[in-house]
Amino acid sequence: MLPEEITISQNIFTDIQAFFNSSDYDKVAVLLDENTREHCLPLVQQSMQPTTIIEIKSGEEQKTLDTCTNIWSHLTDHQFERKSLMVNLGGGVIGDMGGFCAATYKRGIHFINIPTTLLAQVDASIGGKLGIDFLGFKNHIGVFRLPQKVFIDTQFLNTLPERELRSGFAEVIKHCLIADADYWKKVSSRELATQPWPEIVEHSVQVKNKVVESDPFENGYRKILNYGHTVGHAIESYYLNYREKKLLHGEAIAAGMICEAYLSAWNCGLTETVIQDIQEYILGIFGKVDIHPEEIAKITALCMQDKKNEKGSINLSLLEDIGHPVINLVVGQDEIIKSIQRYLEL
Amino acid sequence: MLPEEITISQNIFTDIQAFFNSSDYDKVAVLLDENTREHCLPLVQQSMQPTTIIEIKSGEEQKTLDTCTNIWSHLTDHQFERKSLMVNLGGGVIGDMGGFCAATYKRGIHFINIPTTLLAQVDASIGGKLGIDFLGFKNHIGVFRLPQKVFIDTQFLNTLPERELRSGFAEVIKHCLIADADYWKKVSSRELATQPWPEIVEHSVQVKNKVVESDPFENGYRKILNYGHTVGHAIESYYLNYREKKLLHGEAIAAGMICEAYLSAWNCGLTETVIQDIQEYILGIFGKVDIHPEEIAKITALCMQDKKNEKGSINLSLLEDIGHPVINLVVGQDEIIKSIQRYLEL
Repeated sequence: MLPEEITISQNIFTDIQAFFNSSDYDKVAVLLDENTREHCLPLVQQSMQPTTIIEIKSGEEQKTLDTCTNIWSHLTDHQFERKSLMVNLGGGVIGDMGGFCAATYKRGIHFINIPTTLLAQVDASIGGKLGIDFLGFKNHIGVFRLPQKVFIDTQFLNTLPERELRSGFAEVIKHCLIADADYWKKVSSRELATQPWPEIVEHSVQVKNKVVESDPFENGYRKILNYGHTVGHAIESYYLNYREKKLLHGEAIAAGMICEAYLSAWNCGLTETVIQDIQEYILGIFGKVDIHPEEIAKITALCMQDKKNEKGSINLSLLEDIGHPVINLVVGQDEIIKSIQRYLEL
Repeated sequence: MLPEEITISQNIFTDIQAFFNSSDYDKVAVLLDENTREHCLPLVQQSMQPTTIIEIKSGEEQKTLDTCTNIWSHLTDHQFERKSLMVNLGGGVIGDMGGFCAATYKRGIHFINIPTTLLAQVDASIGGKLGIDFLGFKNHIGVFRLPQKVFIDTQFLNTLPERELRSGFAEVIKHCLIADADYWKKVSSRELATQPWPEIVEHSVQVKNKVVESDPFENGYRKILNYGHTVGHAIESYYLNYREKKLLHGEAIAAGMICEAYLSAWNCGLTETVIQDIQEYILGIFGKVDIHPEEIAKITALCMQDKKNEKGSINLSLLEDIGHPVINLVVGQDEIIKSIQRYLEL
C-alpha cells in the first residue's frame, strides 16, 4: 500500500473540487445515509462532477453483506467500470463498507473518503482497513486497501449528536495513551465540550497515520492501535447480538480501555496511579457500561474470535505506561474475566 | 503482489508434505466439491496436517455470494484465525471462490491452490484473480491476491471427463495464439487426445506467469490474456442466465476466439489465412456453439458489462498475427454483432 493522502481541509469544497479537476473518472457514486444526506451532502455536492447517490440506512447493524449486495447492484445497474469512483460520505460504517464494496467491485475501483464523524476522522477513514460485520463479528469479512484520498473537515462535527462525538473521542484518548503522554495530560485536563477539535483531529490523524505507515498490514507494530479493542470489540459484539439497546463503538472501547488497563497492570506493570488516572477520566466522559455479571462469560468467549488472536490464545496490545505500548501479550480467559469483574465493581 | 510460486510436481504428495513441514499453520481447511473429494482428495490428504473439509457442489452456478457465506461461516465456526490456511482443491470455481473467501476472511488468510482441472492448471490458478459471479456477471465481485503456493500435477487430468479437459484446452490454444507461433504449429497439428500434457501445461503456465509478472494488476500488457474473452465471457454469461444447458468456460471462449479473430481482421489486420487456420482447428476440437440469431443482441449487450471496458466503449485484446497481440482496441457494438453473425454462418 502507498502512503495515504490525507487532507485536513480549511475549505473542503475547494479541495474536493481540485481533486475532481485533476482526475478523470467516468462515473461517480456517493454512498451516504439519511443523516449525511441531510447535513453533509449539501456542503460538498457541488464540488464534485455529476454523481449518482446510493443511500443506505445509518447504523452499525446495516454493515452487512446484504447492504453490500445493494451497493454492488447499484454500481452494476449504473454500469460502473474500473475507471469509476466511489465517494464515501459518512462515518465509519459508510467508510468501511463503501471501501469494501469499491475494493471488490470488478476487483477494485477507486474510492475517496469524506469522514463526517469524529470516529471516522481520527480512526476509521485512515489505514485501509475495510470490511463488514458477519455473524455478529465486527469487520469479520474485509480487505486492506487505501482510498485515493481522505478529505477531513472538522466543520462536519458540528452536525453530530453529542453521543456520536463522545464515541469518536474514545479513539482520541487511545491515540494519546499509546503514543503521547504529554498530549494525554492536555486532553485529559479538558471536558469533551471544550476540546479544540481541529488540533485534536490533526494530532490523532498524525498518530494513526505514522503507525499505519510503519506496518500497513498489521504484521507487528500496528497492533498497538488495538489497545482497548480486544475486550472493547467483544463488548460491542455482545451488545450488537444480544442486547436491544446498542452501544456505539467508542462507548464499548472506553470500557475496553479500562479493562485492558487492569490487564496491563497484571501483565506489563502499568502502575495503579496511571490506572486511576485513565479510569477516572474515561468514566467522567463515558460513564459505565451496564454489563451484568452473568454476561461476562459470553463476552470473554467473543474475545476468542478476535482477528488479532493466533493459535487459540488471546493476543492483546497493552500499556507499560502512557506512551509505551507493548504488543503480542498473551492472556488467558481467566484474566479477561477478572478484568471485566473489576470493571463491574467500579 | 510477489511473484507467484508455482510447482509443477512429479510427486505432488512429497511437495505438499514439504510445504507443510516448513510452515506453521494452526488450522487448515480444504475446499473441494463432490468430484475432487472422490478423485483427488485421496491422492493428497495424507500429505497435509489435519484438516477440516468444506464441501460445496460442483459447477459455475455455485460461484455465488451464498456459497461464500457458507464458506466464511465454516471458517468462523471452526475459529479460523489469521494464521490458518485454506487449501483450494479443485477447478477454477474452487480456486477463484476459495481464494476470494480466504483473501477476505478477517481481511485475509493464506491459501494454496491445488488445481485439478486443465483449465485451473493452465489459467485460473495463476495470476491472483479471485472472485465470484454476481447478478449473472462472471467474476464481478473479487480481488487480486496471490496464493502462497500453487501445486500442479497433471495426473489429476486423468480423473477429468473429456468435456472438462477440452474446456481447459481453450486456454492452451489462447496462450499459443497470443505468445508462441511455433508452439501453436505443434499444438494445432495434434488432436486433443494425443497432446503431451506435462509439456503442454508447463508451456501454458510459463506463458501466463510471464505475462502476469509483468503487469500483475492488469493496467496494460496483461490484457493480452483477454483474447477471446470479451465475446467469450458474454456468451458464457448468456448461457448461464438464459439457457437451460450450460456452456463450460472453454467452450464459450473457443467461440469467442473465433469471433475475435474476425474482429482482429477488421481492426488490426489479421489475415484471412490465419483466421481459417484458427477457425478450422477450434471447430475441429470444440464444434460450434448453437447461438440463435435473435440472441446476438443480448450477448452484445453483455459485452458492455465487461470489466475490461472503459468509459462506455468495448475494449478488446486482439491479434495482429499469431504471437502478436494488441491491447486496448476499441470496437463498436455493431462490429461485435457482425462477428457473431459471421460465426453463425459457419
